[in-house]
Amino acid sequence: MALVLIKLGGSLITDKEKPYTARPEVMQRLAREIHYIRAQNPNLKLIIGNGAGSFGHQSAKKYNTIEGFVSPSEKMGFCLVHQDVLDLNLLLAKIFLQTGLPVVSLPPVTMVVTENQKLIERNFSCIDNSLATDLIPLVFGDVVLDKEIGGTILSTDTLLAELAKYFLKQNQDKIILINAGDYPGVRDRKGDVISLITKSNYCEIETALGLSHSVDVTGGMKKKVEEFLAISSLGIDCWILDGSIPENLVRAVLGKPTSGTLIRAF
Amino acid sequence: MALVLIKLGGSLITDKEKPYTARPEVMQRLAREIHYIRAQNPNLKLIIGNGAGSFGHQSAKKYNTIEGFVSPSEKMGFCLVHQDVLDLNLLLAKIFLQTGLPVVSLPPVTMVVTENQKLIERNFSCIDNSLATDLIPLVFGDVVLDKEIGGTILSTDTLLAELAKYFLKQNQDKIILINAGDYPGVRDRKGDVISLITKSNYCEIETALGLSHSVDVTGGMKKKVEEFLAISSLGIDCWILDGSIPENLVRAVLGKPTSGTLIRAF
Repeated sequence: MALVLIKLGGSLITDKEKPYTARPEVMQRLAREIHYIRAQNPNLKLIIGNGAGSFGHQSAKKYNTIEGFVSPSEKMGFCLVHQDVLDLNLLLAKIFLQTGLPVVSLPPVTMVVTENQKLIERNFSCIDNSLATDLIPLVFGDVVLDKEIGGTILSTDTLLAELAKYFLKQNQDKIILINAGDYPGVRDRKGDVISLITKSNYCEIETALGLSHSVDVTGGMKKKVEEFLAISSLGIDCWILDGSIPENLVRAVLGKPTSGTLIRAF
Repeated sequence: MALVLIKLGGSLITDKEKPYTARPEVMQRLAREIHYIRAQNPNLKLIIGNGAGSFGHQSAKKYNTIEGFVSPSEKMGFCLVHQDVLDLNLLLAKIFLQTGLPVVSLPPVTMVVTENQKLIERNFSCIDNSLATDLIPLVFGDVVLDKEIGGTILSTDTLLAELAKYFLKQNQDKIILINAGDYPGVRDRKGDVISLITKSNYCEIETALGLSHSVDVTGGMKKKVEEFLAISSLGIDCWILDGSIPENLVRAVLGKPTSGTLIRAF
């Protein structure tokens, strides 16, 4: 039984420039695409995670929630971030339900505990049980409780990577991890999208990722690619692709020619 | 360290006659009361659970979710109920946050698994961890996954009773369970509120509860009282009180004269 984990990036489903502004028409199209994927593969297991986009980042930045909480106002900040990311997730869930997808919203704050921002406890049984009854778990970047600093932020990327590794141990036949954003993939020094990254060609690409401002101003792309390379070495194919191109997500899942970057061990 | 578990009944915080209609002004007053309780008792631990009222009952009834799911439409029903109860819980959370209460919305679907509607797995570590960092877990009546029938409904009453028993084992100094509804308490044959129910006087009261239509047309009050009697025998005081009377909830928690019914072992 194959499992596909799909991240719908915050910049894809929200307008990152406008606080608390979702892109319902993009959500609707993605819901229809995922519905089509399921219709084509009735036995496929799906886990969907959404980034927080312009919902989560407001309070998270204001209260610096990733660094924990000490003061009562930072504690309130932690709670406000949870509320904000739940709001966005529920908007997405509503659209998915209207499209006929049996999604169940499951907040990661109930699954993961960290210690100094390192993940020390995982309990994914509600995801397991949801998949067993053929429901689609809908997770998201969320606050989590931290044994040392009170709380922090767990990104959708980290969560989905953890889930991919967890289900690999459960003997899923094939696992694919898809990162659908609003950018075309990983770019090389010239700005062209690299269609395949493996351990063998990564050393050539690495410098470009670290240097190029066109890739990701936060330097996040290098980290993302390295995380995906580590996961791919376990036998999990990872895609970084443009979810704003209609049908691109469908093509990646169905194994058809896809615009984007595939990260594969060999 | 004392722990107070408060159920805010669905009929208290929503208009049960009008689908999907909350009572924000009641929620605001209750939030202020709970804020006052915390200010008076900074060391008090609080868990709040809300009933689903006119939010949860629409789809739950339409799809008979309590009896499980077989067809795809019943499965969608399960997901819709989860969405609806989350919607109400988030409305309540928003008002609590605005009042300065650090609440964190935690869906029971992630904590409990049933088998033929019997609770067989409990994982309350996210409640534990939230209390440890002085946050207020906000739970609710939710759908849960069921090993035999796919899914069912877990009431706020059952969840809070389970949580009370769980924390009793963790050596909390004192535990109080409060059921705040929109009715004055448990009534006797004449319609008067019984202020105290113990094991000793229950046999006199039992017949009135089973017979009287004034108590609860669904016969739910008898079951509720018997559940609370069982819990009270563990040393947990249980209140059934009218949350629509201002300050009544505050008085019960602070040990002042309260309108309602106290259920206590002896």
